Amino acid sequence: MDYPNDQAPGAPVRSGIPEHGRIPKYYAVKARIALLVDELAEGNALPTERDLAERYEVARETVRQALRDLLLEGKLRRQGRGTVAAGPKLEQPLSLVSYTEGVRRQGRTPGRNLIGLDRFPCNAALAEETGLRPGEPVWHLERVLLADEERMGLESTYVAAERVPHLDTDFDPDSSFYSYLHDRLGIAFGDADERLETVLATPREALLIGTPPALPMLLIHRISRDTEGRPLERVRSLYRGDRFSFSTRLRDSSSTRLGDSST
Amino acid sequence: MDYPNDQAPGAPVRSGIPEHGRIPKYYAVKARIALLVDELAEGNALPTERDLAERYEVARETVRQALRDLLLEGKLRRQGRGTVAAGPKLEQPLSLVSYTEGVRRQGRTPGRNLIGLDRFPCNAALAEETGLRPGEPVWHLERVLLADEERMGLESTYVAAERVPHLDTDFDPDSSFYSYLHDRLGIAFGDADERLETVLATPREALLIGTPPALPMLLIHRISRDTEGRPLERVRSLYRGDRFSFSTRLRDSSSTRLGDSST
Repeated sequence: MDYPNDQAPGAPVRSGIPEHGRIPKYYAVKARIALLVDELAEGNALPTERDLAERYEVARETVRQALRDLLLEGKLRRQGRGTVAAGPKLEQPLSLVSYTEGVRRQGRTPGRNLIGLDRFPCNAALAEETGLRPGEPVWHLERVLLADEERMGLESTYVAAERVPHLDTDFDPDSSFYSYLHDRLGIAFGDADERLETVLATPREALLIGTPPALPMLLIHRISRDTEGRPLERVRSLYRGDRFSFSTRLRDSSSTRLGDSST
Repeated sequence: MDYPNDQAPGAPVRSGIPEHGRIPKYYAVKARIALLVDELAEGNALPTERDLAERYEVARETVRQALRDLLLEGKLRRQGRGTVAAGPKLEQPLSLVSYTEGVRRQGRTPGRNLIGLDRFPCNAALAEETGLRPGEPVWHLERVLLADEERMGLESTYVAAERVPHLDTDFDPDSSFYSYLHDRLGIAFGDADERLETVLATPREALLIGTPPALPMLLIHRISRDTEGRPLERVRSLYRGDRFSFSTRLRDSSSTRLGDSST
Protein backbone atom coordinates (compact mmCIF):
# COMPACT_ATOMS: atom_id res chain seq x y z
CA MET A 1 0.00 0.00 0.00
CA ASP A 2 1.23 3.47 -0.73
CA TYR A 3 0.43 6.46 1.47
CA PRO A 4 -0.32 10.16 1.14
CA ASN A 5 2.92 12.07 0.96
CA ASP A 6 2.76 15.04 3.27
CA GLN A 7 6.50 15.65 2.99
CA ALA A 8 6.16 18.47 0.46
CA PRO A 9 9.17 20.68 1.16
CA GLY A 10 8.32 23.27 3.75
CA ALA A 11 4.65 22.41 3.93
CA PRO A 12 3.53 24.07 7.18
CA VAL A 13 1.80 20.91 8.35
CA ARG A 14 2.76 17.99 10.55
CA SER A 15 5.01 15.72 8.56
CA GLY A 16 4.11 12.20 9.37
CA ILE A 17 6.21 9.88 7.29
CA PRO A 18 9.77 9.08 8.33
CA GLU A 19 12.43 9.75 5.69
CA HIS A 20 14.22 6.62 6.80
CA GLY A 21 12.96 3.41 8.30
CA ARG A 22 9.71 1.59 7.91
CA ILE A 23 6.30 3.19 8.18
CA PRO A 24 4.01 1.26 10.50
CA LYS A 25 1.11 -0.08 8.41
CA TYR A 26 -1.53 1.27 10.79
CA TYR A 27 0.00 4.73 10.40
CA ALA A 28 -0.26 4.63 6.61
CA VAL A 29 -3.95 3.66 7.03
CA LYS A 30 -4.40 6.44 9.59
CA ALA A 31 -2.99 9.03 7.17
CA ARG A 32 -5.45 7.83 4.50
CA ILE A 33 -8.42 7.90 6.85
CA ALA A 34 -7.39 11.38 8.07
CA LEU A 35 -7.75 12.61 4.48
CA LEU A 36 -11.23 11.03 4.30
CA VAL A 37 -12.20 12.74 7.57
CA ASP A 38 -11.03 16.13 6.25
CA GLU A 39 -13.63 15.86 3.50
CA LEU A 40 -16.49 15.03 5.88
CA ALA A 41 -18.64 17.71 7.48
CA GLU A 42 -18.70 17.71 11.28
CA GLY A 43 -20.96 14.92 12.57
CA ASN A 44 -20.95 12.96 9.31
CA ALA A 45 -20.31 9.23 9.59
CA LEU A 46 -17.13 7.46 8.58
CA PRO A 47 -17.44 4.17 6.63
CA THR A 48 -17.50 1.09 8.87
CA GLU A 49 -14.34 -0.67 10.05
CA ARG A 50 -15.16 -3.52 7.70
CA ASP A 51 -15.50 -1.18 4.70
CA LEU A 52 -12.26 0.59 5.54
CA ALA A 53 -10.40 -2.71 5.95
CA GLU A 54 -11.63 -3.83 2.52
CA ARG A 55 -10.86 -0.50 0.89
CA TYR A 56 -7.25 -0.45 2.13
CA GLU A 57 -6.74 -4.22 1.99
CA VAL A 58 -5.63 -4.51 5.61
CA ALA A 59 -6.81 -6.40 8.69
CA ARG A 60 -9.65 -4.91 10.73
CA GLU A 61 -7.30 -4.69 13.73
CA THR A 62 -5.07 -2.36 11.67
CA VAL A 63 -8.06 -0.12 10.92
CA ARG A 64 -9.03 -0.23 14.58
CA GLN A 65 -5.58 0.95 15.66
CA ALA A 66 -5.72 3.82 13.16
CA LEU A 67 -9.19 4.84 14.40
CA ARG A 68 -8.01 4.70 18.02
CA ASP A 69 -5.29 7.28 17.27
CA LEU A 70 -7.73 9.52 15.39
CA LEU A 71 -10.18 9.33 18.30
CA LEU A 72 -7.45 10.20 20.84
CA GLU A 73 -6.42 13.15 18.68
CA GLY A 74 -10.00 14.38 18.38
CA LYS A 75 -10.32 14.06 14.60
CA LEU A 76 -13.09 11.50 15.12
CA ARG A 77 -15.64 10.91 17.84
CA ARG A 78 -17.98 8.08 18.72
CA GLN A 79 -21.66 8.73 18.16
CA GLY A 80 -24.06 5.97 19.07
CA ARG A 81 -22.57 2.85 17.52
CA GLY A 82 -20.76 4.69 14.74
CA THR A 83 -17.79 6.98 14.32
CA VAL A 84 -18.22 10.51 12.98
CA ALA A 85 -16.01 13.43 12.03
CA ALA A 86 -15.36 15.69 15.02
CA GLY A 87 -15.27 19.45 14.70
CA PRO A 88 -12.14 21.51 15.32
CA LYS A 89 -10.85 21.72 18.89
CA LEU A 90 -12.37 24.45 21.02
CA GLU A 91 -9.85 27.24 21.46
CA GLN A 92 -9.79 28.68 24.97
CA PRO A 93 -7.87 31.87 25.69
CA LEU A 94 -5.12 31.63 28.29
CA SER A 95 -6.37 34.70 30.13
CA LEU A 96 -8.20 35.78 33.23
CA VAL A 97 -11.46 35.24 31.41
CA SER A 98 -13.57 32.40 32.82
CA TYR A 99 -14.30 29.04 31.21
CA THR A 100 -17.89 30.21 30.76
CA GLU A 101 -16.87 33.30 28.83
CA GLY A 102 -14.31 31.40 26.72
CA VAL A 103 -16.87 28.79 25.65
CA ARG A 104 -19.53 31.42 24.88
CA ARG A 105 -17.14 33.29 22.59
CA GLN A 106 -17.06 30.19 20.41
CA GLY A 107 -20.82 30.05 20.16
CA ARG A 108 -21.21 27.11 22.52
CA THR A 109 -23.39 26.87 25.61
CA PRO A 110 -21.30 26.41 28.76
CA GLY A 111 -22.56 24.31 31.65
CA ARG A 112 -21.30 22.78 34.87
CA ASN A 113 -22.27 19.76 36.95
CA LEU A 114 -21.50 19.94 40.64
CA ILE A 115 -19.46 17.02 41.96
CA GLY A 116 -18.92 18.38 45.45
CA LEU A 117 -18.54 21.41 47.69
CA ASP A 118 -16.56 20.89 50.91
CA ARG A 119 -15.19 23.15 53.60
CA PHE A 120 -11.92 22.23 55.32
CA PRO A 121 -9.00 23.84 57.17
CA CYS A 122 -6.23 25.03 54.84
CA ASN A 123 -3.36 22.54 54.92
CA ALA A 124 0.35 23.36 54.74
CA ALA A 125 0.79 22.61 51.03
CA LEU A 126 -2.14 24.80 49.98
CA ALA A 127 -1.04 27.57 52.34
CA GLU A 128 2.43 27.57 50.83
CA GLU A 129 1.11 27.68 47.28
CA THR A 130 -1.48 30.39 47.78
CA GLY A 131 -0.36 32.50 50.71
CA LEU A 132 -3.50 31.59 52.70
CA ARG A 133 -3.06 30.98 56.46
CA PRO A 134 -2.66 27.34 57.54
CA GLY A 135 -5.86 26.27 59.28
CA GLU A 136 -8.11 28.97 57.89
CA PRO A 137 -11.36 27.59 56.41
CA VAL A 138 -11.23 26.90 52.69
CA TRP A 139 -13.91 25.83 50.20
CA HIS A 140 -13.21 23.10 47.69
CA LEU A 141 -15.61 23.30 44.74
CA GLU A 142 -15.39 20.50 42.18
CA ARG A 143 -17.36 20.61 38.94
CA VAL A 144 -17.53 18.85 35.58
CA LEU A 145 -17.28 21.39 32.76
CA LEU A 146 -19.73 21.10 29.86
CA ALA A 147 -20.08 22.66 26.42
CA ASP A 148 -23.38 22.02 24.64
CA GLU A 149 -24.05 19.24 27.18
CA GLU A 150 -20.81 17.46 26.26
CA ARG A 151 -18.42 16.79 29.17
CA MET A 152 -15.20 18.68 28.50
CA GLY A 153 -13.23 18.74 31.71
CA LEU A 154 -13.07 18.80 35.49
CA GLU A 155 -12.38 21.86 37.61
CA SER A 156 -11.29 22.02 41.25
CA THR A 157 -11.36 25.43 42.91
CA TYR A 158 -9.91 26.19 46.34
CA VAL A 159 -10.91 29.55 47.79
CA ALA A 160 -10.74 31.05 51.29
CA ALA A 161 -14.13 30.80 53.03
CA GLU A 162 -13.52 34.32 54.36
CA ARG A 163 -13.76 35.70 50.81
CA VAL A 164 -16.93 33.82 49.86
CA PRO A 165 -18.63 32.98 53.19
CA HIS A 166 -21.97 31.95 51.67
CA LEU A 167 -20.72 29.90 48.73
CA ASP A 168 -22.81 26.92 49.84
CA THR A 169 -26.14 28.77 49.96
CA ASP A 170 -25.68 31.80 47.76
CA PHE A 171 -24.08 30.40 44.59
CA ASP A 172 -25.65 28.37 41.79
CA PRO A 173 -23.00 25.72 41.00
CA ASP A 174 -24.16 25.58 37.37
CA SER A 175 -23.19 29.24 36.89
CA SER A 176 -19.89 31.08 36.47
CA PHE A 177 -17.88 31.37 39.69
CA TYR A 178 -16.05 34.40 38.30
CA SER A 179 -19.31 36.19 37.53
CA TYR A 180 -20.47 35.41 41.07
CA LEU A 181 -17.27 36.87 42.54
CA HIS A 182 -17.53 39.98 40.44
CA ASP A 183 -21.26 40.69 40.30
CA ARG A 184 -22.24 39.65 43.81
CA LEU A 185 -19.12 40.29 45.86
CA GLY A 186 -17.29 42.98 43.87
CA ILE A 187 -14.10 40.90 43.78
CA ALA A 188 -11.89 41.50 40.75
CA PHE A 189 -8.90 39.52 39.52
CA GLY A 190 -5.53 41.24 39.41
CA ASP A 191 -3.19 38.57 38.12
CA ALA A 192 -2.60 34.83 38.11
CA ASP A 193 0.21 32.34 37.63
CA GLU A 194 -0.62 29.46 35.35
CA ARG A 195 1.21 26.26 34.58
CA LEU A 196 0.09 23.96 31.81
CA GLU A 197 1.06 20.34 31.21
CA THR A 198 -0.23 17.17 29.59
CA VAL A 199 -1.22 14.27 31.85
CA LEU A 200 -3.13 10.99 31.73
CA ALA A 201 -6.51 11.09 33.44
CA THR A 202 -6.81 9.03 36.61
CA PRO A 203 -9.55 6.36 36.63
CA ARG A 204 -11.73 8.64 38.77
CA GLU A 205 -11.26 11.57 36.39
CA ALA A 206 -11.88 9.44 33.30
CA LEU A 207 -15.10 8.22 34.94
CA LEU A 208 -16.29 11.74 35.77
CA ILE A 209 -15.42 13.19 32.35
CA GLY A 210 -16.49 10.08 30.48
CA THR A 211 -13.28 9.58 28.50
CA PRO A 212 -11.11 6.53 27.90
CA PRO A 213 -8.25 6.34 30.47
CA ALA A 214 -5.56 6.60 27.77
CA LEU A 215 -6.75 10.00 26.56
CA PRO A 216 -4.11 12.73 26.99
CA MET A 217 -5.50 15.64 29.00
CA LEU A 218 -4.38 19.22 29.38
CA LEU A 219 -3.97 20.19 33.02
CA ILE A 220 -3.84 23.83 34.03
CA HIS A 221 -2.79 24.92 37.50
CA ARG A 222 -3.80 28.47 38.36
CA ILE A 223 -3.08 30.61 41.40
CA SER A 224 -4.84 33.95 41.21
CA ARG A 225 -4.78 37.16 43.21
CA ASP A 226 -7.18 40.09 43.43
CA THR A 227 -6.38 43.63 42.34
CA GLU A 228 -4.74 44.28 45.75
CA GLY A 229 -2.48 41.26 45.31
CA ARG A 230 -4.27 39.17 47.94
CA PRO A 231 -4.51 35.41 47.22
CA LEU A 232 -7.88 34.54 45.74
CA GLU A 233 -8.05 30.96 44.50
CA ARG A 234 -6.09 27.90 43.50
CA VAL A 235 -7.62 26.12 40.53
CA ARG A 236 -6.80 22.80 38.94
CA SER A 237 -8.52 22.46 35.56
CA LEU A 238 -8.34 19.31 33.53
CA TYR A 239 -9.43 19.57 29.89
CA ARG A 240 -9.91 16.86 27.27
CA GLY A 241 -6.86 16.96 25.03
CA ASP A 242 -8.93 15.83 22.03
CA ARG A 243 -11.37 18.75 22.38
CA PHE A 244 -9.34 21.72 23.60
CA SER A 245 -6.47 23.93 22.59
CA PHE A 246 -5.29 27.09 24.34
CA SER A 247 -4.23 30.33 22.76
CA THR A 248 -2.41 33.40 23.95
CA ARG A 249 -1.03 36.66 22.60
CA LEU A 250 2.54 37.25 23.69
CA ARG A 251 3.94 40.76 23.84
CA ASP A 252 7.34 42.22 24.30
CA SER A 253 7.88 43.06 27.97
CA SER A 254 10.90 44.16 29.97
CA SER A 255 11.57 40.65 31.28
CA THR A 256 11.28 38.92 27.92
CA ARG A 257 12.58 41.71 25.71
CA LEU A 258 14.71 40.79 22.79
CA GLY A 259 14.49 44.10 21.11
CA ASP A 260 14.85 47.80 21.11
CA SER A 261 13.58 50.38 23.55
CA SER A 262 9.98 50.58 22.35
CA THR A 263 7.39 49.78 24.97
CA MET B 1 -4.56 -5.23 48.10
CA ASP B 2 -5.31 -1.86 49.61
CA TYR B 3 -4.12 1.40 48.12
CA PRO B 4 -2.86 4.79 49.26
CA ASN B 5 -5.79 7.04 49.95
CA ASP B 6 -5.19 10.40 48.33
CA GLN B 7 -8.83 11.41 48.80
CA ALA B 8 -8.17 13.53 51.89
CA PRO B 9 -10.82 16.24 51.74
CA GLY B 10 -9.53 19.22 49.84
CA ALA B 11 -6.04 17.89 49.35
CA PRO B 12 -4.67 20.07 46.55
CA VAL B 13 -3.39 17.07 44.67
CA ARG B 14 -4.72 14.87 41.90
CA SER B 15 -7.28 12.54 43.39
CA GLY B 16 -6.92 9.22 41.72
CA ILE B 17 -9.32 6.80 43.27
CA PRO B 18 -12.95 6.73 42.13
CA GLU B 19 -15.53 7.15 44.90
CA HIS B 20 -17.69 4.58 43.15
CA GLY B 21 -16.84 1.65 40.99
CA ARG B 22 -13.84 -0.62 40.93
CA ILE B 23 -10.25 0.55 40.92
CA PRO B 24 -8.22 -1.11 38.19
CA LYS B 25 -5.57 -3.25 39.87
CA TYR B 26 -2.75 -1.77 37.81
CA TYR B 27 -3.80 1.69 38.99
CA ALA B 28 -3.60 0.69 42.65
CA VAL B 29 -0.08 -0.63 41.96
CA LYS B 30 0.78 2.57 40.09
CA ALA B 31 -0.32 4.71 43.07
CA ARG B 32 1.93 2.62 45.35
CA ILE B 33 4.92 2.83 43.03
CA ALA B 34 4.37 6.59 42.65
CA LEU B 35 4.84 6.92 46.42
CA LEU B 36 8.07 4.89 46.16
CA VAL B 37 9.30 7.14 43.37
CA ASP B 38 8.58 10.27 45.44
CA GLU B 39 11.10 9.05 48.01
CA LEU B 40 13.84 8.41 45.46
CA ALA B 41 16.36 11.06 44.50
CA GLU B 42 16.49 11.91 40.78
CA GLY B 43 18.36 9.20 38.87
CA ASN B 44 18.03 6.58 41.60
CA ALA B 45 16.90 3.13 40.51
CA LEU B 46 13.49 1.63 41.13
CA PRO B 47 13.34 -2.03 42.27
CA THR B 48 13.03 -4.52 39.41
CA GLU B 49 9.67 -5.54 37.92
CA ARG B 50 10.05 -8.92 39.58
CA ASP B 51 10.66 -7.37 43.01
CA LEU B 52 7.70 -5.03 42.62
CA ALA B 53 5.43 -7.88 41.51
CA GLU B 54 6.44 -9.89 44.59
CA ARG B 55 6.10 -6.93 46.92
CA TYR B 56 2.55 -6.12 45.78
CA GLU B 57 1.55 -9.72 45.08
CA VAL B 58 0.46 -9.05 41.51
CA ALA B 59 1.42 -10.35 38.07
CA ARG B 60 4.46 -8.83 36.36
CA GLU B 61 2.22 -7.65 33.52
CA THR B 62 0.28 -5.57 36.08
CA VAL B 63 3.53 -3.96 37.28
CA ARG B 64 4.53 -3.38 33.66
CA GLN B 65 1.30 -1.54 32.93
CA ALA B 66 1.77 0.65 36.01
CA LEU B 67 5.37 1.45 34.98
CA ARG B 68 4.23 2.30 31.43
CA ASP B 69 1.87 4.97 32.79
CA LEU B 70 4.56 6.40 35.09
CA LEU B 71 7.01 6.54 32.17
CA LEU B 72 4.47 8.32 29.94
CA GLU B 73 3.81 10.81 32.73
CA GLY B 74 7.51 11.46 33.23
CA LYS B 75 7.73 10.27 36.85
CA LEU B 76 10.13 7.54 35.71
CA ARG B 77 12.62 7.24 32.90
CA ARG B 78 14.60 4.38 31.38
CA GLN B 79 18.32 4.38 32.02
CA GLY B 80 20.36 1.61 30.53
CA ARG B 81 18.45 -1.56 31.35
CA GLY B 82 16.83 -0.17 34.48
CA THR B 83 14.17 2.35 35.44
CA VAL B 84 15.06 5.40 37.52
CA ALA B 85 13.24 8.31 39.14
CA ALA B 86 12.94 11.26 36.74
CA GLY B 87 13.36 14.83 37.90
CA PRO B 88 10.55 17.38 37.79
CA LYS B 89 9.36 18.56 34.39
CA LEU B 90 11.26 21.48 32.91
CA GLU B 91 9.14 24.61 33.14
CA GLN B 92 9.34 26.80 30.05
CA PRO B 93 7.87 30.30 30.10
CA LEU B 94 5.15 31.03 27.55
CA SER B 95 6.82 34.24 26.42
CA LEU B 96 8.84 35.75 23.63
CA VAL B 97 11.95 34.38 25.24
CA SER B 98 13.70 31.68 23.19
CA TYR B 99 13.95 27.96 23.99
CA THR B 100 17.67 28.51 24.64
CA GLU B 101 17.02 31.20 27.22
CA GLY B 102 14.19 29.22 28.89
CA VAL B 103 16.37 26.13 29.31
CA ARG B 104 19.34 28.15 30.60
CA ARG B 105 17.19 29.75 33.30
CA GLN B 106 16.67 26.28 34.73
CA GLY B 107 20.36 25.58 34.88
CA ARG B 108 20.39 23.22 31.91
CA THR B 109 22.55 23.38 28.82
CA PRO B 110 20.51 23.94 25.67
CA GLY B 111 21.51 22.40 22.37
CA ARG B 112 20.13 21.79 18.91
CA ASN B 113 20.71 19.23 16.18
CA LEU B 114 20.03 20.36 12.64
CA ILE B 115 17.65 18.11 10.72
CA GLY B 116 17.36 20.28 7.65
CA LEU B 117 17.42 23.76 6.17
CA ASP B 118 15.44 24.24 2.95
CA ARG B 119 14.45 27.21 0.86
CA PHE B 120 11.11 27.14 -0.98
CA PRO B 121 8.47 29.51 -2.38
CA CYS B 122 5.85 30.50 0.20
CA ASN B 123 2.68 28.51 -0.39
CA ALA B 124 -0.89 29.74 0.01
CA ALA B 125 -1.49 28.25 3.46
CA LEU B 126 1.68 29.73 4.94
CA ALA B 127 0.98 33.09 3.28
CA GLU B 128 -2.48 33.19 4.81
CA GLU B 129 -1.21 32.32 8.28
CA THR B 130 1.71 34.70 8.35
CA GLY B 131 0.94 37.57 5.99
CA LEU B 132 3.96 36.72 3.80
CA ARG B 133 3.51 37.03 0.01
CA PRO B 134 2.66 33.82 -1.86
CA GLY B 135 5.71 32.75 -3.85
CA GLU B 136 8.28 34.74 -1.91
CA PRO B 137 11.28 32.65 -0.83
CA VAL B 138 11.00 31.15 2.64
CA TRP B 139 13.47 29.21 4.79
CA HIS B 140 12.38 26.10 6.63
CA LEU B 141 14.71 25.30 9.51
CA GLU B 142 14.08 22.05 11.36
CA ARG B 143 15.99 21.17 14.52
CA VAL B 144 15.85 18.68 17.38
CA LEU B 145 15.90 20.53 20.71
CA LEU B 146 18.24 19.27 23.43
CA ALA B 147 18.75 19.96 27.12
CA ASP B 148 21.88 18.50 28.68
CA GLU B 149 22.24 16.30 25.56
CA GLU B 150 18.77 14.80 26.11
CA ARG B 151 16.37 15.12 23.15
CA MET B 152 13.41 17.23 24.27
CA GLY B 153 11.51 18.27 21.18
CA LEU B 154 11.42 19.20 17.53
CA GLU B 155 11.20 22.72 16.16
CA SER B 156 10.19 23.85 12.66
CA THR B 157 10.74 27.51 11.83
CA TYR B 158 9.49 29.22 8.67
CA VAL B 159 10.95 32.65 8.02
CA ALA B 160 11.04 34.90 4.94
CA ALA B 161 14.40 34.61 3.16
CA GLU B 162 14.28 38.39 2.67
CA ARG B 163 14.64 38.89 6.43
CA VAL B 164 17.53 36.44 6.88
CA PRO B 165 19.14 36.16 3.44
CA HIS B 166 22.30 34.39 4.65
CA LEU B 167 20.73 31.90 7.06
CA ASP B 168 22.44 29.01 5.27
CA THR B 169 25.98 30.39 5.53
CA ASP B 170 25.87 32.87 8.38
CA PHE B 171 24.05 31.01 11.16
CA ASP B 172 25.28 28.21 13.40
CA PRO B 173 22.31 25.81 13.61
CA ASP B 174 23.37 24.71 17.09
CA SER B 175 22.88 28.27 18.40
CA SER B 176 19.85 30.38 19.27
CA PHE B 177 17.95 31.66 16.22
CA TYR B 178 16.52 34.51 18.28
CA SER B 179 19.98 35.65 19.40
CA TYR B 180 21.08 35.53 15.77
CA LEU B 181 18.12 37.69 14.70
CA HIS B 182 18.76 40.19 17.45
CA ASP B 183 22.54 40.35 17.71
CA ARG B 184 23.45 40.00 14.04
CA LEU B 185 20.48 41.50 12.22
CA GLY B 186 18.99 43.87 14.79
CA ILE B 187 15.55 42.27 14.44
CA ALA B 188 13.37 42.47 17.55
CA PHE B 189 10.13 40.67 18.35
CA GLY B 190 7.03 42.75 18.91
CA ASP B 191 4.33 40.20 19.59
CA ALA B 192 3.23 36.66 18.76
CA ASP B 193 0.11 34.52 18.70
CA GLU B 194 0.52 31.11 20.25
CA ARG B 195 -1.74 28.11 20.31
CA LEU B 196 -0.98 25.11 22.47
CA GLU B 197 -2.44 21.61 22.25
CA THR B 198 -1.61 18.02 23.10
CA VAL B 199 -0.99 15.58 20.22
CA LEU B 200 0.47 12.15 19.57
CA ALA B 201 3.84 12.17 17.86
CA THR B 202 3.93 10.85 14.31
CA PRO B 203 6.30 7.91 13.65
CA ARG B 204 8.78 10.32 12.05
CA GLU B 205 8.67 12.67 15.02
CA ALA B 206 8.96 9.83 17.55
CA LEU B 207 12.02 8.60 15.64
CA LEU B 208 13.68 12.03 15.59
CA ILE B 209 12.96 12.77 19.26
CA GLY B 210 13.56 9.20 20.37
CA THR B 211 10.30 8.71 22.24
CA PRO B 212 7.72 5.93 22.16
CA PRO B 213 4.91 6.71 19.66
CA ALA B 214 2.23 6.68 22.39
CA LEU B 215 3.84 9.53 24.33
CA PRO B 216 1.60 12.61 24.55
CA MET B 217 3.40 15.69 23.24
CA LEU B 218 2.77 19.39 23.70
CA LEU B 219 2.56 21.19 20.37
CA ILE B 220 2.93 24.97 20.22
CA HIS B 221 2.09 26.93 17.10
CA ARG B 222 3.59 30.43 17.05
CA ILE B 223 3.21 33.27 14.58
CA SER B 224 5.38 36.22 15.52
CA ARG B 225 5.80 39.77 14.28
CA ASP B 226 8.56 42.32 14.70
CA THR B 227 8.20 45.61 16.56
CA GLU B 228 6.74 47.23 13.43
CA GLY B 229 4.09 44.50 13.20
CA ARG B 230 5.65 42.85 10.14
CA PRO B 231 5.37 39.04 9.98
CA LEU B 232 8.58 37.41 11.19
CA GLU B 233 8.24 33.65 11.58
CA ARG B 234 5.88 30.74 11.89
CA VAL B 235 7.10 28.14 14.36
CA ARG B 236 5.81 24.69 15.16
CA SER B 237 7.41 23.36 18.36
CA LEU B 238 6.79 19.88 19.61
CA TYR B 239 7.83 19.17 23.20
CA ARG B 240 7.91 15.90 25.13
CA GLY B 241 4.86 15.89 27.39
CA ASP B 242 6.71 13.86 30.02
CA ARG B 243 9.53 16.42 30.31
CA PHE B 244 7.93 19.84 29.81
CA SER B 245 5.37 22.12 31.34
CA PHE B 246 4.66 25.73 30.37
CA SER B 247 4.01 28.64 32.65
CA THR B 248 2.64 32.10 32.22
CA ARG B 249 1.70 35.14 34.30
CA LEU B 250 -1.76 36.42 33.43
CA ARG B 251 -2.65 40.03 34.08
CA ASP B 252 -5.83 41.99 34.03
CA SER B 253 -6.21 43.71 30.65
CA SER B 254 -9.05 45.58 29.00
CA SER B 255 -10.09 42.58 26.92
CA THR B 256 -10.08 40.13 29.81
CA ARG B 257 -11.10 42.48 32.59
CA LEU B 258 -13.47 41.17 35.19
CA GLY B 259 -13.00 43.95 37.60
CA ASP B 260 -12.90 47.59 38.43
CA SER B 261 -11.38 50.49 36.57
CA SER B 262 -7.79 50.01 37.72
CA THR B 263 -5.33 49.57 34.91
